[in-house]
This record gives sequence, C-alpha cells and structure tokens, in this order.
Amino acid sequence: MRLRNKAGATEELLQHPSIVIQHAETKKGKWHEVFGNDNPIHIEVGTGKGQFLTGMSQLHPDINCIGVEKYDSVIITALERIQDAGMSNFKLLNEDVINLMNYFEQGELDRVYINFTDPWPKNRHEKRRLTYEGFLKMYEQVLKKQGEIHFKTDNQALFEYSLHSFSKYGMILHNVSLDLHNSGIEGNVMTEYEEKFSRKGMRIYRCEAQFR
Amino acid sequence: MRLRNKAGATEELLQHPSIVIQHAETKKGKWHEVFGNDNPIHIEVGTGKGQFLTGMSQLHPDINCIGVEKYDSVIITALERIQDAGMSNFKLLNEDVINLMNYFEQGELDRVYINFTDPWPKNRHEKRRLTYEGFLKMYEQVLKKQGEIHFKTDNQALFEYSLHSFSKYGMILHNVSLDLHNSGIEGNVMTEYEEKFSRKGMRIYRCEAQFR
Repeated sequence: MRLRNKAGATEELLQHPSIVIQHAETKKGKWHEVFGNDNPIHIEVGTGKGQFLTGMSQLHPDINCIGVEKYDSVIITALERIQDAGMSNFKLLNEDVINLMNYFEQGELDRVYINFTDPWPKNRHEKRRLTYEGFLKMYEQVLKKQGEIHFKTDNQALFEYSLHSFSKYGMILHNVSLDLHNSGIEGNVMTEYEEKFSRKGMRIYRCEAQFR
Repeated sequence: MRLRNKAGATEELLQHPSIVIQHAETKKGKWHEVFGNDNPIHIEVGTGKGQFLTGMSQLHPDINCIGVEKYDSVIITALERIQDAGMSNFKLLNEDVINLMNYFEQGELDRVYINFTDPWPKNRHEKRRLTYEGFLKMYEQVLKKQGEIHFKTDNQALFEYSLHSFSKYGMILHNVSLDLHNSGIEGNVMTEYEEKFSRKGMRIYRCEAQFR
C-alpha cells in the first residue's frame, strides 16, 4: 500500500477513544465489556481503510468487529467511515499485528480475517507474511478452539504459499475458491483492493483455514 | 474419458504378461522382484493411455513406474507405447484402483500420481473422486512413511475439493501451483489431457500432498 502522510491523523485518532481504542493492553480479556455485549468478536489484521469491516459490521450487526492497522494514514479513513455510518460494533486498534497477544486473551476471538495483505514475495521476507507460521501461532492463541482464518488475496504466489503454510500447521482448508467472483458465493463483502483487481479481470483467491 | 471398445484389446493385453502384469495379488510385496532392482516405485492411478508414465519412465530410468488402469480400451495404448519405446521400467496393471491394497504391501510404494482424474462433480459422487478420504487411506497404506501424492488437474472444482480433502486428512501441501504452465516449473511431463487443455489456454492446477 502506498502511504501518504495525512496531516493531523495521529491527533484525530486520539480524539475518538470510543472507536479507536487506546491502551489496548488494558482491554485484554475485556473486549466483550468494550462492546457491551457477548456477541462473537471478529478481527481483521491489516484492516487498511476499513472498507471490508465497514461492510461486514453493517451486514452482521450481531458480530463485533475490530480492525487492527498500524498505519495512521490509512486507519484514519476507517475512523471516518465508522463516524459516517455510525455503527457501534466496529472498533479500531492502531497497533502492529505482531503484538496481537498483548491485546487479546487466549480464546477471546471467534475469527481472523486476512485480506489482500502484503505478499512479501522475497524468500528472505517469508516471516513477514501474515500467513507465516509465526503469525498462525499467534492467531491460534487468541482464537477460540477450532477458530478460523478467512483469507482473500489476488496474489497467486501468496495464496500458493499460504496453502502450504496452513496445511503444514495442521489446519483444515474449507471453501477454497480459486476464482471467487465466478464461484457464485453469496454474502462476499469486497475490500477496496478487491474491487480494483476484480474490475481488471484478475482472479481473487479465497479460503477458510481452521485450527484443529 | 469417452471409451470406445477396441476389438481384441483384452486378448492382446493377456499376450504380454511381462508388461501387463497378471494375477497382481501374487506380486504383493514382491514388486522389486518384478522389476529386478531396488529402485523406487511410483504408480499412477487411472493411467489411461499412459502418456505421462511413458515420459516419466524415459526421463527417469532409475524409477520403476506402474500404471493402474481398469479400462482395456485405453490401457492397450499404454501397452503399445511401452512396446514401441522398449523401456523395462514401466509395467501395467489392468485393475481397479479400489483394490490397490490387494496388489501392494504396506509401504511398498514411493509415490502416487493422480493426473486429470474424473472430477465426479455431483456431491453424491464424492466418494468416487480419487482424492476422497477413502482413497487417501489406501494410498497412505501402500506408500512409505511421509510418502507423497503428486496431483494435477484442469478441473478447478476438483482441485478446490482436493485441497480440502488433503488438509482434512492432515497432509502437508507442497509446491502448489495454480497455473502450472506459467510457473516456470522444470521437468513437467505432460499428459494427453494436459496438452489439450493447456493448448486451449486453460489453467493447470498442481500440488504435492505429503502424509505425516
């Protein structure tokens, strides 16, 4: 993602602590209190401008959504979307995914979304891919037993790698789609990237990977 | 595969017992004797007209190849190919894959190839797909520990299903390719179907699935 500095983004994020949760480590194990209900909690890692979770949280008001995104300059757009649409089941964490276990208790989450993440194509950057074993270990920790990752990408090589990584970790693949937009799947919420890539006629790859 | 009766095929197959192995159940545990060496043994299930194993056995004279195919009318072409090329490391089994364990001892094989197999698209025919759990159990039995299945198909739905089936069985996926002919892979031996489909510009899907 090309990032442009957005003047005043950091300050703006701090002004909306009911949406952009501050001192997130103090919420560990208490996210149901933050949302004020016992609904399932889904997070998206690398949520960017938040288009996907905006759609999901509107489509599923009985699901609590948390977008995790480290870059101020894009998460600010997610904040604006939440303010515009006024939904209360979508919160933001302006933090690095690498620290996920600082913010969530073991088994606190019901699902992790990974959408159009950076493919880090060089072999020596494998560990930075959000479907690398090291990240899977973290997701497994914070997810309920048999929790699921829902993964979408336009990047063929990243998808091929991720199928290897998921299966090597012992995960079960469900609902694999090698051409999502020609598969007749229902209820798909598109990300900004997805709209752009699929308009160009590129294939979108998707699967669900479940921990045992 | 459309099958035409080929007059005299059955009789012709019986005339070449050094290539088309008869009473295969008596060879169980003795395939290295059949080949007269201790080289690894690879089988292809549903070998059809044998183009793939012809290429493989020529490319790898140090590998013993066995093509398993129940239809007389196509395996007869594989027999002709072996006679024409004269290789001694390619044998045929004119049998049904469903009985695989009658013909091979536990751990006797090094690799199983599944190429362009019938996709059996209807849900109620799932058990007939050669990547169904029931078949995986058989392959696991006859393969060495951590043995591999090498799988190719042009059929997107069958590939999607097979990724699910392999991972559910606990297998590890390696070298997944979602567009084999544009992946720069080396040493790929094409089947007849593969030539036909890839000429039409269709994607070929491939992966290796390893038992734990």
